This record gives sequence, structure tokens and C-alpha cells, in this order.
Amino acid sequence: MDAQPGRSVTSKVLALLDAFTPATPALTLTELARRAGLPLPTAHRRAAELVAWGALERGDDGRYRIGLRLWEVGSLAPRGLGLRELALPIMEDLYEVTHENVQLAVRQGLELVFIERIAGRHAVPVLTRVGGRFALHATGVGLVLLAYAPAEVQEQVLAAPLERYTELTITDPRRLRRCLAEVRRVGYAVSDRQVTMDALSVAAPIRGSDGVVAAISLVVAHDRADPLALAPLVQAAGRVLSRALGTSYRRSPGRVPSPTRSETQ
Amino acid sequence: MDAQPGRSVTSKVLALLDAFTPATPALTLTELARRAGLPLPTAHRRAAELVAWGALERGDDGRYRIGLRLWEVGSLAPRGLGLRELALPIMEDLYEVTHENVQLAVRQGLELVFIERIAGRHAVPVLTRVGGRFALHATGVGLVLLAYAPAEVQEQVLAAPLERYTELTITDPRRLRRCLAEVRRVGYAVSDRQVTMDALSVAAPIRGSDGVVAAISLVVAHDRADPLALAPLVQAAGRVLSRALGTSYRRSPGRVPSPTRSETQ
Repeated sequence: MDAQPGRSVTSKVLALLDAFTPATPALTLTELARRAGLPLPTAHRRAAELVAWGALERGDDGRYRIGLRLWEVGSLAPRGLGLRELALPIMEDLYEVTHENVQLAVRQGLELVFIERIAGRHAVPVLTRVGGRFALHATGVGLVLLAYAPAEVQEQVLAAPLERYTELTITDPRRLRRCLAEVRRVGYAVSDRQVTMDALSVAAPIRGSDGVVAAISLVVAHDRADPLALAPLVQAAGRVLSRALGTSYRRSPGRVPSPTRSETQ
Repeated sequence: MDAQPGRSVTSKVLALLDAFTPATPALTLTELARRAGLPLPTAHRRAAELVAWGALERGDDGRYRIGLRLWEVGSLAPRGLGLRELALPIMEDLYEVTHENVQLAVRQGLELVFIERIAGRHAVPVLTRVGGRFALHATGVGLVLLAYAPAEVQEQVLAAPLERYTELTITDPRRLRRCLAEVRRVGYAVSDRQVTMDALSVAAPIRGSDGVVAAISLVVAHDRADPLALAPLVQAAGRVLSRALGTSYRRSPGRVPSPTRSETQ
């Protein structure tokens, strides 16, 4: 029986997509039905439609996975690949001069989503997953995105329990509020061993036509980090990217334009 | 009135997503309804559900765009970001030693989809869009993917008209058939000014447990290209990546595993 018989078909289809997470990227039909809260026959019928369209793919092992067609459509999200395409050359510049990890993130509700990262081969290990989520109150990019978020977003984050990742994670709402004010004052954020005890990140805002739309950061080994030296580099990258976004805004009414379709080799 | 009243709700929801293309990433409700073949009220109701979930976003300009949540779910596609995460370090190596354009593509039906590219700053311009599609018979990666595709795929491509991009594009099915046999014999493909008159690409296959799953290429300026010197480089990258995929196959039943979720900074 359908756990929620009043649900719309659209919500059932979307529940099937929600069943897939980074921890569960491949699901049997039984797992899929259970996670989506659908009876097995309903899940089977809807999943078959999604497979036919390409939103799901079914492997030789019988498991369902997210299909390439959904990735293709998802790549049209202006805040995803559109932003990433604009940012990548600037991220590459930052990587060339530092050989450290470079990250790009946007806020999605009360969390952040990593849009891109360049992992330094000999830099401190950061195992960020592009498309992965994280809390706002601990990382450099998160502190920037939170510092410039609408007041109601800040209040919601400050009102909820703040997860502790290390002994240096800020979990006191009053301290976090002061930290955010400082981020706005200096124009960058430093997360010093607030996520892992070996790493420090320095992040700066990227501004669009309606405020801060993304954040860029360098993540370096804590013991060789000089935040005061890194901050101008990251801020400069943020400014170049803000200007690139501004130019795009004048060309297009979109929040972040997609690159134009063009010839290829 | 619904143009096709017998359509399932799932197909209507998917038709709304299909309406968005690289050329039309932002749509008004009227455009969306027309492209999806749905009556305005139906399109409005379904679009509202998609916005609530995050599959679509509606801007200040009233237009709909693909939402970040869909990009997030799409990022779980094993043949998309999963493959890309495995390939990126190897693509970066290839870029470091050549400073030329590096591309990664998979076959989707009778076309290819670009999964990743590193654009050389001073290399010949290639304006590939990640997530973008292209024909199989012209590019280096396309020739590789076609050469190793199932026979029925080859026959379908050979039976259809072959679009001419330059005077050197192979549009004769018999010549293309001979070219594909040569690709299989030598283990790499060269596309010499077959897409644009200034560029040459050299591509090699990436093998998974069930044959060739992707292709990697270097795209260089035609006038300074030495395909015989580039081929071993690209082939070596393809082999390293095939081995990386093989290792992953033993760990996971998936076609291409997603990277594990892990801590981040």
C-alpha cells in the first residue's frame, strides 16, 4: 500500500529520485520502493518510465542508478555548471599560483553545495565531492555564504544545534554571530582547523546582481598556512569572478548564464 | 487542451524537463507549456511542484530554470560525475605535460556527451560545453566511441546522413567504416580538421568491465600537431584510466562507482 495515498504522481516520481544519495548511489527495486515510500508495483512502474527517459539506468546487476540524461539536464542549472564554467579559469589561476586546493560553493537552503574543486596533488587532502553538501558554520566557504545570507537564514542556522567537527568548530551561537560580523567587516573568512585538525581554509564572496551568490576558497595544510597572505589572493579571485558574473548579467537576464552552445572538437 | 491526453503524469513531468536545452536554459511559463506540449494550467501546476522540490527555480524575471537540486541528483550519475572524478587527475596530468585541451566523453545513444574538459589557455579554442552533445562521426572521441560501439549502433549511424562540418569531415559511409576499422586496429583515432579547419584531435578508448565505456582526447592546433607523437600520450592516459576503472569495478558492482562520501573542508 502507498504510505501516503494522497501524494501526487509528481511527488512520487521525485521521491524516487530522492532515494539516491552519495551513500546510496545504486539501489535494488525493493530498496528504491522502501526509500521512496511507494508500493513495489508503483515503484516498478514509475522506475520503468524513468529508465525509458534516461533519468535512471538499470545495470547488469539489476540495480537502479541515476542516468546520464538526468545529469545532462542537471548540467543546465545556472547555479551549477553555468557558474562553474565561468569560475573554472579563475580557479585554475588560483591553483597555478598556490598548488593548493581550490573550492567553489553556493548556498542551498541551510547548507552549502560544492560546485567545483581543484584538488592539489601535494596539498592537504580534502575529499570534497562535487555536488556534495555540507553545513554552513564550519568551512571557509560556509562562513562566507552564511555571513552574507539573508537574516532569516542566519537566524535559523544560529537557532539550530551547531555540529562539532573538531575542538575548534564554533558551536556557540554568540561566538558564531561575532565571527560572521568579522567576516563581513574584513571581506573574507578563515576556518582554522574547524573541520579537520590538519587544514585551514580562507574564503571570499562572489557577488552577483542580488548580493553574494557563491564563495571561493583555498584549503591548505594548517601548519604551513598564512591566512593573511592567502586572503588577498582569494579576495582577488572573488572580485574577478564577481566582475565576470556582472558582465554576464548585463548580457542575460539569468542569475548565472549558461555558456553559449557552440562548435566543438 | 493536452496535446496528448493519454500521456502519463510521469511523462508530462519529464516533458517539462526536456523543454530546457543549452539553447533555451530559461523559459517563461508559456514557452515551457508549449515546448512540453501541455495546457497552461497543467504546466503551471506541475512546474510549481518541480519548483517546490528544487528541480526548477523561478527567477525574479519570472522565467523557469533548471534548479540546483536537479544538478545535485544528476551528479550521482555514475557515467557523469563518477567517471569524471576518477578521470580528472589523469586529465590534469595530460594537461600538465601538453598544455593542450583535454576532453572526456561517453556515448549516449547515437551521440556523444562531453563529461569533462580542461581547456588549454593558449591552446586552440574549443568551446565544448560539459554536458553538451555532439555527433559521433567527426570528433576524435566520437570516432573512438563509434569504433567500439555495438554493431547495431554503428549500422544506425552509417545508415543516417553524416553531417559535414568541414570539407574534411567523413560523410561517405564506406570511408567511415574503413576509418573505424583502422581505429580498432591502431587503438586510437585522429580527427584531422574534421570538425573545424584549425584543430586536430587524437583520442583513445577507456575500457570498463563490458568494453569501451568512454574516450579521452587531446585537441591541438592543426598546424603544430604531430598525431604520432600525441597518440602514445593519449593511449597511456586511456590505459591508466581503464585500470583505475577496473580497480573500482572489483570494489563495486556499479558500472562506474561514485567516489565515497567523506569529510570536507
